[in-house]
Amino acid sequence: MSGEIATGGPAAREGRGREHGGKARRERRSVGGGVRQLPFKTLRNPLKPIEVLSEDQVETIHLASLEILENIGIESLHMETIDLFERAGAKVDRSTLRVKPDRGLILEAIRTVPPEFTLRARNPERDLHFGGNHLVFCATGGPAFASDLDRGRRAGNEADMKDYIRLVHMLNVLHQEGGTGLEPTDLPPDTRHLDVYESILTLTDKSWHCWAIGAFRVRDAIEMACIAYPTTREELLTRPAVISIINSNSPLKFDGPMGEGLCELARTGQATVCTPFTLCGAMSPVTLAGALAQQNAEALFMIALTQLVRPGSPAVYGGFTSNVDMKSGAPAFGTPEYTKAAFASGQLARRYNFPYRSSNVNASNVVDVQAAYESGMSLWGTIMGGVNLLAHAAGWLEGGLTASFEKLILDCEMLQLMRETLTPIATDRASLGLEAIAEVGPGGHFFGVGHTLERFEHAFYAPLLSDWRNFETWTDAGSIDGTHRANAIWKELLRQYQEPAMDPAAREALAAYVARRKVEIGSGKY
Amino acid sequence: MSGEIATGGPAAREGRGREHGGKARRERRSVGGGVRQLPFKTLRNPLKPIEVLSEDQVETIHLASLEILENIGIESLHMETIDLFERAGAKVDRSTLRVKPDRGLILEAIRTVPPEFTLRARNPERDLHFGGNHLVFCATGGPAFASDLDRGRRAGNEADMKDYIRLVHMLNVLHQEGGTGLEPTDLPPDTRHLDVYESILTLTDKSWHCWAIGAFRVRDAIEMACIAYPTTREELLTRPAVISIINSNSPLKFDGPMGEGLCELARTGQATVCTPFTLCGAMSPVTLAGALAQQNAEALFMIALTQLVRPGSPAVYGGFTSNVDMKSGAPAFGTPEYTKAAFASGQLARRYNFPYRSSNVNASNVVDVQAAYESGMSLWGTIMGGVNLLAHAAGWLEGGLTASFEKLILDCEMLQLMRETLTPIATDRASLGLEAIAEVGPGGHFFGVGHTLERFEHAFYAPLLSDWRNFETWTDAGSIDGTHRANAIWKELLRQYQEPAMDPAAREALAAYVARRKVEIGSGKY
Repeated sequence: MSGEIATGGPAAREGRGREHGGKARRERRSVGGGVRQLPFKTLRNPLKPIEVLSEDQVETIHLASLEILENIGIESLHMETIDLFERAGAKVDRSTLRVKPDRGLILEAIRTVPPEFTLRARNPERDLHFGGNHLVFCATGGPAFASDLDRGRRAGNEADMKDYIRLVHMLNVLHQEGGTGLEPTDLPPDTRHLDVYESILTLTDKSWHCWAIGAFRVRDAIEMACIAYPTTREELLTRPAVISIINSNSPLKFDGPMGEGLCELARTGQATVCTPFTLCGAMSPVTLAGALAQQNAEALFMIALTQLVRPGSPAVYGGFTSNVDMKSGAPAFGTPEYTKAAFASGQLARRYNFPYRSSNVNASNVVDVQAAYESGMSLWGTIMGGVNLLAHAAGWLEGGLTASFEKLILDCEMLQLMRETLTPIATDRASLGLEAIAEVGPGGHFFGVGHTLERFEHAFYAPLLSDWRNFETWTDAGSIDGTHRANAIWKELLRQYQEPAMDPAAREALAAYVARRKVEIGSGKY
Repeated sequence: MSGEIATGGPAAREGRGREHGGKARRERRSVGGGVRQLPFKTLRNPLKPIEVLSEDQVETIHLASLEILENIGIESLHMETIDLFERAGAKVDRSTLRVKPDRGLILEAIRTVPPEFTLRARNPERDLHFGGNHLVFCATGGPAFASDLDRGRRAGNEADMKDYIRLVHMLNVLHQEGGTGLEPTDLPPDTRHLDVYESILTLTDKSWHCWAIGAFRVRDAIEMACIAYPTTREELLTRPAVISIINSNSPLKFDGPMGEGLCELARTGQATVCTPFTLCGAMSPVTLAGALAQQNAEALFMIALTQLVRPGSPAVYGGFTSNVDMKSGAPAFGTPEYTKAAFASGQLARRYNFPYRSSNVNASNVVDVQAAYESGMSLWGTIMGGVNLLAHAAGWLEGGLTASFEKLILDCEMLQLMRETLTPIATDRASLGLEAIAEVGPGGHFFGVGHTLERFEHAFYAPLLSDWRNFETWTDAGSIDGTHRANAIWKELLRQYQEPAMDPAAREALAAYVARRKVEIGSGKY
């Protein structure tokens, strides 16, 4: 009887149990030194999206959303929005600020939305394409807190904001900066967008998100992009470089500053990401179907508005349907409801041929297994939902309140895993390796054969964060878990960081613009 | 200007940033007390599997695998296997133990494999169906070590083995016990299967896996099932109750004890799960196509063998293709390669109309973010690959060397998430909730409306492990991360455990059988 009987049950030969057969060597790469990551690459998703709704169900939700717009309508605190819809033929009640566009108006308006568009980055090699099966990973934007293992959780501040941008620049799997991973709350509220834009435009040459709360924040973004790229407002009309997220105030409300931001972006031909925030049971019905119908109504309203402002301006359909914990009212993310909504939202976006935005979300308070598995659910839901713009792709923690330095690294590993999973399998004769199988023969191993040696360096995914050393070696090295390894990685990346080159004149002009605008805003001239 | 401008960037309204709007309450359920989990339910996967191979590519791999069998063949250390194939017309070289079945033989033999079958459990309500879109979650089987946060990593032992079975019994999302989560290495090797079977058959009434290394271990499983269910060998022929995993000794080798196990299972009409272990770059070519062709060849060989022994005996196509870290030779799991292989293996299994087995794997040494994200990749790969039997669905750690108590809980949460994601979205008129949307109106909230109140208790997934309390409440409660929460949950489940009822006579007969067989095996009578 073989030794394997003594050491293993039925499945003992699977997995590392097989190592006692002597075929897998135990030595590992030495740790320390550089950080290993994939190169920057724009991405397409060749897999057919997962569909949770039948075609009939998509149509049912579509029709319900038109019914909502016609019968209930949207309350708009933004007067220009009311004017634009009224001019286009919508029923308007100015005493209640209610706009009720009918289906003819909506369907006619959205006909001019471009199904695909390109967004310029300061570095032309990092220009991004949205729509079709293109896939853009955008870092988190907007959290109020920063956190890491060394310093804990703290209010967002300028120094952390800059480090976060530096890391987003360094992490190759990220295509786009998200409008600062965290809010620099130590800077004056009315001018901090200027500091943020200046930091983004100098610390990274990747594409980025501006802030769209109020028209002046969009105008400043456009002016600063014109200086930094450089480009002109005329050129931007056909070659957009500025993008921002527009949230409706669910349910069915559209506020003034967001209305200003949307209209300014659309007027200048820049991209809007029109995203309702429909949390089942709180800001939308407790049912997924109801939340999706409401999401679709609000998204159609905002997207139609972009086209009423300027036909052909780029717009993205945003889905952000999740649920609350009904026991507490707290928002939940990365749930089955979120994942199914992400699949369904992709189906809705494709019905209209809109580019589709969704997010990598989780509700954990710490970078632990919950953060990882909720993000995993989000990533599979969004990516297999056919997402084009994956917002908050890296760094989001605690339901979006916190930008975590370790979560940024964890998410980049998970994004790399997803990216490599989308690479097709080659089945040409050489890849089949039948000669190698014959050469090795029964009971042999493939370590030393030519077929292996020719390919081994690039055959497999090389992880950013995973540690595949055996238990003994890993223990001897200090039993460092994934979150603590992530901590070492972001520090190493900051050490390696080098600012991307920029014309010194442009850099000076940017600084001068920021200085001038701070004075203007200080004197009430927004 | 609104307060939101001061506190948030473009995306600050998404996620918990919205809570300052006052719509989401901050109170949470009190912690402690019972463990909340979903009820036991057999499962179907209504989603269309993800396909990474074209139909042509599936055919290419199929043909390559037949070429491997015809030209290279399998080395069998099991003489009955050689005899059976020779009798069926295969070329055999007894000096090299090489069996070379041609494609006609293989394709003819596999025609009798049942595409679906039912496996009896001791509790008839827990009978399981394999094939079609049925989905069975089976706990891990075979690890040599046990581990938990309190006691660390230790050699598998009888006490831990029993606790693990008790937990598998208690965790409703698990359909099947995996043949003990860990090896009781403190019991004598030649008779420990008897103790294991007795523990399984008394501590849980769920379906289970026996050990198949050597015919006597299968015979003992069948005899003990006959006593415990109760049933007879005659009845078992048409209503199987015993299942086990059969591994080939990749590459292209089939050993004696596994051959014995397979033939005994097939002869008695019990189920075999025929699983090569093709680790790219070690036991198979470095390329996925090569590994899949070799996997397919070995699986077809074993499955054909089950039908040569007894046409119509239930067999499952097992895929276990992953890769090694080429820097160290260590096995890697939950990689993009693993995930793609899981999709592709499902396509191969469906080509032959075989039930499909795959696994929830990871290579982490600890229950950390790596364990969670690698398992997440495995779960999506296998479940969206159309798996029917998900082996090692819960508990597997460290590449299969260790059965972890916390990983068991983590995996059950992840399985629950997947299970709920497979539930369709209802879009009937009541679910759309248009009346509720009209009732709430723009700017309102849905907490108190009838549509919500009628549904809120069962509207959403209630987690086993996730903690959705806000940061302050979570911090006040001790900042307990997911792995430590898992630790508390398995302990609470063990406290709640109650042994399922069993006829005392059957229980005595089982004990007597074990006692008798220990004496027999002690005297060399296997």
